[in-house]
Order: sequence, then C-alpha cells, then structure tokens
Amino acid sequence: MNGLSQKIYLPMHVPTEEDPRSSQQRILDALAAEGISASLSLPVLQSMFPLLEQADYQVTASLCFNGYTWQVTGLTPGNTADEHYGLAVDLGSTTVVMELVNCNTGEVLAQESCYSHQIAYGEDILTRIFYTKNQPEHRKELQKATTDTLSQLMQTLSDSTGINTRACSCMIISGNTTMIHFLLGLDAFCVFSSPYAVQTDTPDFFWAKELGIPMEGMVYCYPCRANYMGGDIISGIVATGMNRREEISVFFDIGTNGELVMGNRDFLVCGAGAAGPALEGGVVKTGMRAADGAVEALKLSDDTFQLSVIGHGNPMGICGSGIVDLIAELFINGILDIRGKFSANSSRHLIYGKNGTPTGIEYAPGLIFDENDVQEFLRTKAAAYTMMQLTMEQTGITMADISDFYMAGSFGSHVNKESAIRIGMYPDVPHEQIHTVGNTSLMGARSLLLDRSILTELKDILDKMEYIQFGSIANFLEVMTAASYLPHIDLHRFPSVERELAKRQYTK
Amino acid sequence: MNGLSQKIYLPMHVPTEEDPRSSQQRILDALAAEGISASLSLPVLQSMFPLLEQADYQVTASLCFNGYTWQVTGLTPGNTADEHYGLAVDLGSTTVVMELVNCNTGEVLAQESCYSHQIAYGEDILTRIFYTKNQPEHRKELQKATTDTLSQLMQTLSDSTGINTRACSCMIISGNTTMIHFLLGLDAFCVFSSPYAVQTDTPDFFWAKELGIPMEGMVYCYPCRANYMGGDIISGIVATGMNRREEISVFFDIGTNGELVMGNRDFLVCGAGAAGPALEGGVVKTGMRAADGAVEALKLSDDTFQLSVIGHGNPMGICGSGIVDLIAELFINGILDIRGKFSANSSRHLIYGKNGTPTGIEYAPGLIFDENDVQEFLRTKAAAYTMMQLTMEQTGITMADISDFYMAGSFGSHVNKESAIRIGMYPDVPHEQIHTVGNTSLMGARSLLLDRSILTELKDILDKMEYIQFGSIANFLEVMTAASYLPHIDLHRFPSVERELAKRQYTK
Repeated sequence: MNGLSQKIYLPMHVPTEEDPRSSQQRILDALAAEGISASLSLPVLQSMFPLLEQADYQVTASLCFNGYTWQVTGLTPGNTADEHYGLAVDLGSTTVVMELVNCNTGEVLAQESCYSHQIAYGEDILTRIFYTKNQPEHRKELQKATTDTLSQLMQTLSDSTGINTRACSCMIISGNTTMIHFLLGLDAFCVFSSPYAVQTDTPDFFWAKELGIPMEGMVYCYPCRANYMGGDIISGIVATGMNRREEISVFFDIGTNGELVMGNRDFLVCGAGAAGPALEGGVVKTGMRAADGAVEALKLSDDTFQLSVIGHGNPMGICGSGIVDLIAELFINGILDIRGKFSANSSRHLIYGKNGTPTGIEYAPGLIFDENDVQEFLRTKAAAYTMMQLTMEQTGITMADISDFYMAGSFGSHVNKESAIRIGMYPDVPHEQIHTVGNTSLMGARSLLLDRSILTELKDILDKMEYIQFGSIANFLEVMTAASYLPHIDLHRFPSVERELAKRQYTK
Repeated sequence: MNGLSQKIYLPMHVPTEEDPRSSQQRILDALAAEGISASLSLPVLQSMFPLLEQADYQVTASLCFNGYTWQVTGLTPGNTADEHYGLAVDLGSTTVVMELVNCNTGEVLAQESCYSHQIAYGEDILTRIFYTKNQPEHRKELQKATTDTLSQLMQTLSDSTGINTRACSCMIISGNTTMIHFLLGLDAFCVFSSPYAVQTDTPDFFWAKELGIPMEGMVYCYPCRANYMGGDIISGIVATGMNRREEISVFFDIGTNGELVMGNRDFLVCGAGAAGPALEGGVVKTGMRAADGAVEALKLSDDTFQLSVIGHGNPMGICGSGIVDLIAELFINGILDIRGKFSANSSRHLIYGKNGTPTGIEYAPGLIFDENDVQEFLRTKAAAYTMMQLTMEQTGITMADISDFYMAGSFGSHVNKESAIRIGMYPDVPHEQIHTVGNTSLMGARSLLLDRSILTELKDILDKMEYIQFGSIANFLEVMTAASYLPHIDLHRFPSVERELAKRQYTK
C-alpha cells in the first residue's frame, strides 16, 4: 500500500542527559529513520506529554500526506501499526455512503449509508442552494448538516466494527460540486448560475476538525472540473482507470444529472446535462425512487406484464430501471411507435381518451403511464444519447473506436442493458462492452485513500479534461430531436433493435 | 525585501461563460502569473464570496510562506499592496516587546512593550512552571496569559498607528524555551528537569487563530537549540550575523540566565548558566529592577558617590549596571580587595560589625551593600567569565582570536564597559571590540520577518551549534573560583586593570 496515510511504530530511546533531544525531534528522527519527513501539528505537540513518558517512548504515529509533506495526526501508546484505518465517502445529495477501510490491506471492513441531513433543507439541491443564497448563517447550517451526516456514519461504523473511526488519519470525500461547496461552507449559487464560475475546484487537504468532522486526521475532497463536472465523476474516472489505458472508453453516470467522459490516456472530453430527472420521482406521475413498492423491472409477454417489485409487495410506482423496461417492452411489442405514441388496440391495458385515441397504459393495477410520461422520458433518454453523439462528433470518434462503456451510479447498476439499447438510451454494442460499475464515486475515493500517487494523476486528469458545453453546439437541437425517437430516427444506428423488430414483424 | 509575507495586487478578469474558472483558480492563476505557487486556507476560501464580486475581482492577496508553500492568509478589495505590515516579538518572561514593521520597506513603524500577563502566575519562571506541572488546565491559563499579552500589544500598536494589526499575515516570535512552551500550551517542566529533553525545539508555522492570537496570518517561533539555549539566542545570532562571518565573535546575553555563543561561519559553540540572578532584584538586598529610583550608574571620587538614579528622584535601590559600577569603583579605589573583602578605613561610607571589621558600605543614604551582596555578585560575574573561558578552552580559541564581543539584552545595554572589565566580568579587550547590541531577540525576529532565506540559515545554525554542559567539565569549579577574584586571580589577564591599579598605587 502506498496510501495517503501511514501508521508507524516508533520504539524510541528514553531521554537521558547524554541524549536530551526534544520529544518532537525524537519523533521526527524516528520517522526519518523510516524515510519519512514529517511535520507535527499543534494538537499533536500538545498530546506528547505525558503520553510519551507513560508509554515509555514506545508509540505509534499516525500520519497523513497533505500534498506537501507528511503530517503526524496522532500518537498512540505501544505498537498499533496494525490498526490502520481510513474512511472513503461518496457524498451524494440524497444518500451518503461511507466505507471503513483497512489501509494496510485495502480490505473494506464495513460500509454504511444514510440519507443526507441536508434533506431537511430541501429534497432537491436547488431548494438548498436558494436557502443558503446570500445567507452566511444558512451556509453554516448546511455545512453542519453535511458534517452531522458524516459524524453519524462514522458512529455507525464504529458501533458495527468496534473500531474508533475518530482516530482515522485520512478521509477522502467525493461528491458533486455543490456537495463539496456545502461541506466547505461555501456559497453554491454559483454552481447553477451563469457564468458558472464556482468558488473552489481543487480544495487542499483540511484538518477534519476545521470542517467540524470529529476525526483526528485530515480530509481531502476530490477536485471538480466544472460546475456540473464534480469530484464524484473525477473519482469515477480514477475508479475505472480509463485515463490510464490506450483504448478509448466512455464513462457515463446517469442520475439526476447525466455526466459523460470519453477518452483514454491521451485525451479526455466531458460534458454534462439534465439527463436524468425522469428517472426519479416527480416528473413521471407514478415515478418513485428505487424503494419498497417500486417496479424495478418488467416484461411483457402475451400482453401480460410480469413485474419485479422491490420488497415483493404490491406495486406502488415505478423507478428508473422499471421505466426503461416498460418503454422498451411497449416499443418492441408494437404498443408504442417510434415517436412514442400509443398504437390503438395494441394492448388490452391501454387507456383511451375522449376522442378514442389511447392516452396511456395501466402497467400495474391502478398505475398508469401516460403519453406525457413517455415524452418526458424520451427527452431524458434523448439527452443521454445526444451527449454521447455530440461528444463523438466533437472528437471525431466513432462508436467502433470505443472499447468500453462504463455505466456508473445506481441507475446504471439496475437498468437492463438490452432494454436501454432498445429504447436508444445505450449505444447498440455487444453487452460485454457495457460495464455496470456501480458506485464509482466511492470506489475512486477508496482508491485515492490507498494510493497517494493518484494525487499527481488528478492534476493530469484535470489538465486533460476538455469540457464541452452541449447547449452551445450548433446542431444540438437537431441531434436531440433525432434521438427522441425510439430508438432513434436513424434505425440503422441500432442494428440489433432493427433485427429484433424485423423478427417480431415476421412472427406477427 | 524577500520576507516571509507578501501582499500582491491581483487585477483579475470578471468570470464569463468563456472563462468560468473558479474563484480559487482565478486567484491561483493570478498569483502564478507573479511567479507564486500558493494554497488557499478554508477561511480564505470562505471569504471569497461576495468579496470578489463586490470588488469587481480587483483584490489584494496577503500571503505568508509556511516553510513549504505560500499560504494566502487574507484578501482585501482593491489595491492595498502598499499596506503590508508584519509583527516581530521578543517574548520575554517579564517584558514582552512587539514591533510593527512595514514589510515593504523594512521600516519599524512603532514599538510597544508591556509586562507579561504571565506574571500573575508567578514573578519568576519556576513558579509558573510549577503552577502548570501536570495541570493541563493551568497550561491553558498560561497560554492564554501569553496570547492576551500579545493581543494587548497588537491593540496598542493599532491604536497608536491606526494600522489594523489583525490583518498582518506574519508574526515572528523569539523567546526562551519556556516562553515558547507556554505560548504553545506545552508542559514546560521538562525545561528545568533532568534530562532536559524539552517538548518542542523547532515548531512549525501555526495559524495565529490556532494559538488564540487574533490575527489573520501565521505565527512562527524561533527554534531553540536546547532547554537553556532558546530561540531568543538563536535570534540573537541571526541579528549579529556572527554565523556568516569569517572572524570569530562572542555573543553574550546576561539576564536572569547567561547564554554564550562563540563562533563564526564554520562553527558555533554555546553554553548557558545561571549567570545573572544577582543582576536583578532579590539576591542583592538593595537590588531592584532597572525602574524609577534605581541607581543605574555610579562614580566614586574623593570618597564621594556620584549617583545616576533612574527618574532622577531619590535612590531606592540599585540595579545590575549600578552594581557593576559600584563593585568596580570600590575595587579600583582600594575599598574592596581582590577577594571582595572590604578594607578597613578605606572609606568613610563603610559600615563596621561588632568585631570592628567592615561589613558593608552605604552607597546612598540608607542603602547598604554588604559583603554577602558582594560575594553573591562575584559568583555572578565569575559565572559569566567562566562561561567564556571554558568555551575558549573547549575550542582552543584564545582571546586574541576573537574579533568581536556582542553584549545583548537590557543589562548589556546599560552596563559600563570599563566597569565590567575592571571587575573581570567582561574580557580586557579594547572597548571598540565590545558591542552593545540591545534587544537582539527582537532584532532577529524582525530580520526573519523581512528575509525568509533565514529559515534555511536557521537549519544550518542549529546543525552547527555545539552545546557545552559547563557543569560537567572537569575543571569547572577551579576556573570558577579563579574568576571569583577581582578582576581574576590571574591579574595578567586584565592588563588595563593592572595598569590602572599601578597608576593609582603610584598616585597614592
């Protein structure tokens, strides 16, 4: 391990009149003997007495690298070098996930998640931003809500493992730009407001206590590239390693927003857009989060819906992956046409309006997905595909040049690849080229915790990353409109779907 | 100026959609254009909004070099680069002196001093140390007393100059090892207790706020070499520049303790001893501090004392420089013999005991200096000379090899050189070789504030400094005894005194 923290046992000589070195120098010399140049903070200086004497000068130093030098973050009596732990955090706007990692072995000892305490200030991020706008006191409240969430997870991890998380010397946090602004007590209005010049993009290491996090050591936040290209995505790039390979990959995180990165060790282009609102509650009328009662997957055969419901109870709504299945099944079975319009008499589940045209479908008892829902969703999936196409057009890369697609985030983890291809949301490539990579924000945080050489890599990534403002591209609307069809106005882009449709046509 | 702080005007472009760099990056880029690589602390990040907008992105950055990198310590609207101030402090155990320095020009704008608030916890340093021993809460009290003293001086300087000292980006403090321990809230019992392994000798830069000092910037404390060889002496070495010259010099600071450094650019040997107690109040019965009513200088001609009294009122006691004059005049006029015994009938001011032998002298109406006082003082002056002689013996250096003697501190500033030579406290060299250098602790603090290359020089000084434990030298007592005579048992060491005595003998 070549991590951001170290624990080193320092069996030192007891001072004598022949060797009256200071306690500080004794520790620095012992560390230098291990090849480490370090610095002692004030709290550590203050903790030396009477700890050193009581421990007979056999102590273990905890250290964190702060980008410039090693900082001693704490001292413990005896040899506790085996007890070397760190924390990796995915600071989401809804859910915060924290991992307790054995930094000697890299093993993840436990993972906990909880809702962000920020939710008390607004379900969605914009409400929170308006709450704090020009209100320094409110910024402090949001900061405290953030650190309270982290404290709670630390406590939960301590309770479940018996390990004192407060003694950790390093915590790596990855989150989007707004989340990092809230954590640092900074005004976040800039993230959503032209000209989108944020307060900070590459914050330094901070002492946890300075931020209000009850931990001895230091905290580092993944840097962001732009307002909508946050540290969670940079962390994702690191997690996939796409920036180190010769092959070209695409990293795609579709959540409330969609962020896309395309590139390899030589270049990285990226962009972001409001790809995902229809994937969560709100926009789609029976839409809901992926919680108990949500239809998360769905099949339609012989005009009968087979539902997978989270928690196995009665269906209460539909989440993102369920919607993708639903649209795909309706389309492939001829119930939705390529414009996303319902075909009359194509299913017994259709609902009809006053003029006799179908207006929706009852996909579960009492749960209706109507044509507006379909259109909302088509905009979402079109946005996702548009991001990919525009990025390829800007760089001259074709689908054939791309070796791997990394689909990150919760949606990416649950969506059915075939369905996503059938509706034209994912590109029509062999399934094995599409990798469901899960919470790469958290994985990247852990990677950095365990490998400090990534700090240097981050500088390289940020330097390389070319940010595309999709909205300012001339043919943006054209591309978007073409992608709003099922799967696309140019069906040849989706040969597997074309074949399937032909087969079914034939069967019919 | 190549100081530890800088103020740099940064006229930056207002963000646009074409240039949406973060506020942090905008500042870092503007600094980089000036050749400065810097880091922004959390309070500075938090201060950017709405300051940058309100100042139309025309701001001045205050910076402090922290040994590793430049730290931005504050931002002010507009161009305030001319208002670049710093603070230099001599943190004495009795008196604390602070200078406000124009860091662009090096000019000292004002100097203030006051008694240390620590005195409330004991007039002498040992009382304070015992008060804090094993009492963390008491350590905090002493720390607060120290920072309160600094705050008071900052306020006085602000009041007298109209300059906001809280906005300074750097404060350099030099003080003895105990004072620095108190300032940092560290246990100081180690300073006076075998094996004399102190807590810290080379503390890093600290944020002023971390220490409880109400200033935006950072604080650096001069490192110490050993328990009795504090930062005030290292600062003195820097102030005299003796470590940069080919010629060999002696630096001597005689206060409550005496510290001596001998050397040049190739070597530095040093040692310390309890040289000075008889120079202040307490040990000598009519002794007092150099305050109103103290006899500070004295002549004896035709058996009449001519007194210089501080404040020009009635004499109430005698301070260090007065005592040196008194002993010198009594000796040179044949009233004290070489053993420091009063010669009967040598003066009308003598006081006699029951057995008819003289026991003291009334040097001012009602003020008597008795033979015990003389003996106490001879031990003090012998200690001073002994330190010098032993250092020379250890290094093989002779008086003729030494080009300059720097006499530092308040006593050094006020003592009459001729008197000090006549009693054998100062070496018998031409007066122009003896330099009265005043408060070198403060001067060295100012030097470092204005020249950061001294940080590197300090490492070299500390590496070179050879610390001699005088007490453990075999012939220590012998040398000390020989030096207890007036001026020395070997009169040939003081040829000018020998000549003067011969002349007076002849006159008589």
